[in-house]
Amino acid sequence: MIIAVIGGRREASAAALAQAEAVGRAIAGRGAVLICGGLEGVMEAACRGARDAGGQTIGVLPGRDASEANPYVDLPIVTGMGYARNIIVVLSADAVVAIDGSYGTLSEIAYALNFGKPVVGLDTWRLASGGRQDDSIVRAATAEEAVRLACEAAAGGRTVPTA
Amino acid sequence: MIIAVIGGRREASAAALAQAEAVGRAIAGRGAVLICGGLEGVMEAACRGARDAGGQTIGVLPGRDASEANPYVDLPIVTGMGYARNIIVVLSADAVVAIDGSYGTLSEIAYALNFGKPVVGLDTWRLASGGRQDDSIVRAATAEEAVRLACEAAAGGRTVPTA
Amino acid sequence: MIIAVIGGRREASAAALAQAEAVGRAIAGRGAVLICGGLEGVMEAACRGARDAGGQTIGVLPGRDASEANPYVDLPIVTGMGYARNIIVVLSADAVVAIDGSYGTLSEIAYALNFGKPVVGLDTWRLASGGRQDDSIVRAATAEEAVRLACEAAAGGRTVPTA
Amino acid sequence: MIIAVIGGRREASAAALAQAEAVGRAIAGRGAVLICGGLEGVMEAACRGARDAGGQTIGVLPGRDASEANPYVDLPIVTGMGYARNIIVVLSADAVVAIDGSYGTLSEIAYALNFGKPVVGLDTWRLASGGRQDDSIVRAATAEEAVRLACEAAAGGRTVPTA
Repeated sequence: MIIAVIGGRREASAAALAQAEAVGRAIAGRGAVLICGGLEGVMEAACRGARDAGGQTIGVLPGRDASEANPYVDLPIVTGMGYARNIIVVLSADAVVAIDGSYGTLSEIAYALNFGKPVVGLDTWRLASGGRQDDSIVRAATAEEAVRLACEAAAGGRTVPTA
Repeated sequence: MIIAVIGGRREASAAALAQAEAVGRAIAGRGAVLICGGLEGVMEAACRGARDAGGQTIGVLPGRDASEANPYVDLPIVTGMGYARNIIVVLSADAVVAIDGSYGTLSEIAYALNFGKPVVGLDTWRLASGGRQDDSIVRAATAEEAVRLACEAAAGGRTVPTA
Repeated sequence: MIIAVIGGRREASAAALAQAEAVGRAIAGRGAVLICGGLEGVMEAACRGARDAGGQTIGVLPGRDASEANPYVDLPIVTGMGYARNIIVVLSADAVVAIDGSYGTLSEIAYALNFGKPVVGLDTWRLASGGRQDDSIVRAATAEEAVRLACEAAAGGRTVPTA
Repeated sequence: MIIAVIGGRREASAAALAQAEAVGRAIAGRGAVLICGGLEGVMEAACRGARDAGGQTIGVLPGRDASEANPYVDLPIVTGMGYARNIIVVLSADAVVAIDGSYGTLSEIAYALNFGKPVVGLDTWRLASGGRQDDSIVRAATAEEAVRLACEAAAGGRTVPTA
């Protein structure tokens, strides 16, 4: 099982980074592989947590050089495609945990929902359309709950029709 | 000037299609080129409006064959990259008009905001983060107003820092 | 009809640049649209030739900013995907003219042949596989002949099975 | 260290498949990770060889679904980007072993040389430009030699300037 962690980079708060590290640890604790965008902030904290707990991490990098990966990425996937790599992070995952984040994270949430991937949110974007809240993002209160919900959804193969 | 129109495909309502056609007409009326994803729904209606008004249209297609373009696309750009082409639609535009739409449209809005492109919305997604509304999408009430605001923002070179 | 021109960038010789300009002029002379990678060298010379002859030019750019286009690009398509944009140049074309060029050009030739696009070569790569010459690139001696052969092949809809 | 194996898919000969399996085995034998396009033919044979020898395999898939991976892929990277994923296979590798192959393989060789990645060839494409053979592909006679040369080049960090 592969679980994606998405979230803010430079703008991530200390609280978000702590959550990300706990999410990474919980992913490894369940024997799943962590995939992310491979850079700093939430991505780095999540990778550090996963590695601390003995897990494996994949970083899907935007640039052309593996050296831009954070030091906790085991397997750098080098795309050279900039932000278009966001789609690869979520397509490669069985479920996605979104932590905080800005517009880049929002693009990943949108792609994940478009492809029917389960998305679990920790203090992340809220969406509304046509005057109604969109409840596709499952809300979690703690890192452990987020990873449990993500793994359960992934195991259940929950998918929604793609647009 | 190049203006992107993004919005729903199969699920677009009759009202959204009428707005899209009027948006396309207004873009051509201002002498701008229309760019979109090149397929059906809001994309096709907008292209039809632009062509009716003597404008030029570009369709950035997800598949490998130009024949999937709607009949009102003048210049099909064939990517073979699936939904990763969404980023190209917004990066190529000076401003974006979002009409209604589902998660694919949301990914385009997210990318546009990430890259500092002005986004004008007609009955489209509303976003909130950290307990606050995100007001980056400029709201318009009519197709003409949406295109006017988009062209003004594009001319002003409004950009916000990218994440 | 859309004809792609591919070839060297910084390393292009004066002879290659002269051929590229003549190719661009011939494409416009036949009423076709020119598509290319939008940067310097063969790309810029071809765009200049096409514009001089009253034609329209599309530049599919690797970076995130339309300002990197050469001054003879009418419609910049901004991909932000680096060299992955090479595939878009050839997929969007009905036929391809290859002039000189280095490994980037070779990747475009390979993609074009993979997708069954006609490729006409002017002093460009020669390929061999399994001890035999690969004759898929049609050779031309002059810019005018190259464009004539490309347009004829495009009109004939010549395609070969993709791998 | 990550070594890419590229080569033919459906058209691969029995000899090429045997070489690919031996290449995969040798990559694992040296403790390197194998990366490839994740599908059939040379890709599948190489993954099988690597797995038989206790190695780890990454498959960078063109489609949107991990289920298209061959059964010997440990970590499917799902791009949804079609043949544009070829660039990711070579950018992610420290060196590339090319076995036989058609135009898709040629696009990967071209990208690898463009990015200065060492390429070792087993009965694969031969290139000429400007009337001269291009000797950038290092030729090997056996699978073991190919992997040894690839790993040595990767360790030496051999790079050539990119175009």
